[in-house]
Amino acid sequence: MRELIRIHEADDPRIAEFRSIRERDLTGRDSRFIAEGTVVLRMLIGAHCAGGDFAAEKLLLLENRVEGLAALLQELPGEVPVYVASQPVLDAIAGFHLHRGVLALGHRRRNPAPAQLIESLPAKALVVAAFGISNHDNVGAIFRNAAAFGADAVLLDETCCDPLYRKALRVSVGAVLAVPYFRAGSTAEILTTLAGAGFSIWGLSPAGAVEIREVPAADRMVLITGTEGEGLSPEVLARVNTARIAQAPGLDSLNAATATGIALYGMAMAQGRL
Amino acid sequence: MRELIRIHEADDPRIAEFRSIRERDLTGRDSRFIAEGTVVLRMLIGAHCAGGDFAAEKLLLLENRVEGLAALLQELPGEVPVYVASQPVLDAIAGFHLHRGVLALGHRRRNPAPAQLIESLPAKALVVAAFGISNHDNVGAIFRNAAAFGADAVLLDETCCDPLYRKALRVSVGAVLAVPYFRAGSTAEILTTLAGAGFSIWGLSPAGAVEIREVPAADRMVLITGTEGEGLSPEVLARVNTARIAQAPGLDSLNAATATGIALYGMAMAQGRL
Repeated sequence: MRELIRIHEADDPRIAEFRSIRERDLTGRDSRFIAEGTVVLRMLIGAHCAGGDFAAEKLLLLENRVEGLAALLQELPGEVPVYVASQPVLDAIAGFHLHRGVLALGHRRRNPAPAQLIESLPAKALVVAAFGISNHDNVGAIFRNAAAFGADAVLLDETCCDPLYRKALRVSVGAVLAVPYFRAGSTAEILTTLAGAGFSIWGLSPAGAVEIREVPAADRMVLITGTEGEGLSPEVLARVNTARIAQAPGLDSLNAATATGIALYGMAMAQGRL
Repeated sequence: MRELIRIHEADDPRIAEFRSIRERDLTGRDSRFIAEGTVVLRMLIGAHCAGGDFAAEKLLLLENRVEGLAALLQELPGEVPVYVASQPVLDAIAGFHLHRGVLALGHRRRNPAPAQLIESLPAKALVVAAFGISNHDNVGAIFRNAAAFGADAVLLDETCCDPLYRKALRVSVGAVLAVPYFRAGSTAEILTTLAGAGFSIWGLSPAGAVEIREVPAADRMVLITGTEGEGLSPEVLARVNTARIAQAPGLDSLNAATATGIALYGMAMAQGRL
């Protein structure tokens, strides 16, 4: 049976990183992050044990959640401490009512340079590049879709929000911890590196030249997606092939996550990877 | 210039319906609803003026939002009062900081019976039926996707949550007020009515028989979508054609809104309606 360390006081220094996690989310962090909920915890432990890009540092669980998590905790190496608390103590630590009762602190083991990550991609590759996505739900949904359609990587330009934020991680159902990614560089730099690596580059736009399900297959394909309101900039669209998703006349009304899902599905089908 | 009625006190009875709207959302309502934000307000005023299913009763605006809404307010018939308040008064009314500053009270003018709505559909029709959707974001997203792909109606069984809830309305970008719908009846009743009206009925399932983009065209098609976790019940799947969305091996990982979007896109393309 896994050793559990009981926390009685919200100000116990051993769980300091879990204090007031809502405010913490607003202030940005180093390469550490809070994983919330069983689904994300499972992905974190999976990455930890597989020697992936992410490692677990410590867990903080509601006492009555421990039994249901027993099998998962068995997989966790012994050097990662597991703290448990009652609901009142847990709520006092987190700063709000944490009904899920499952928190973990993780960190990024390594942060591959953009050129290095792109170079490491297989000869047949499907990649998503997202430019200027500032909404945590949307960035999380992009990772979830990337995982669903077997994409090899997600490339975020430096203006995207951090996918390791608690809410983005949750919306991604932990896919942020499973799909290789970077968040660095300008859109111009990323496009140049992709072109140099032989990628067929497709940007989504309501005025795109090719309907998304008619995009021709290529060994290496990348989908570029922009912000929900403004979309991709004219500078980006001028440098790439453009694809559209047919919609009813009137407003361009798909949300960013759904548009990315439809486009990735089309490109993955074109490549015959599903 | 539109007449504006200034509210100085949060307990003014003329704006009582806007008080503590967060709690109100939890308790359910009659056929009245709160529309929040400019996008939803625009759809409400559009429905009101076109004699659609929904009417506006009153508006409550942050004083500094009035100028930006002047053109929209011009369209609003004079009998709908427009109240304005300062930020502190508005926040005291709503019960939280309402930075958007745009609220409206609306009501449903008529509530078509399910059989009547289905009968009124055109000979060439595309419809979404959603069973057991209890998440306001997902029900809102289903309406948004339905509008984006020109669906003629959304049919919700009686166990779905109310799409007129403030958050569902907002996620739908107001499409709930534009796409005809009902929320009534059991799944069995809805399926029987649809079959009687000549609909080709397709249910989404990870184990579906036909890949969604190969579903054959029919004049009248309906997409059935279920809850994110459990999906459609075996009883429903046994009565309908089943379609799948190909995904990478492992978890069935698309969210409900994205899955509905991909499926609706496929069916709308099959019908040649986009």
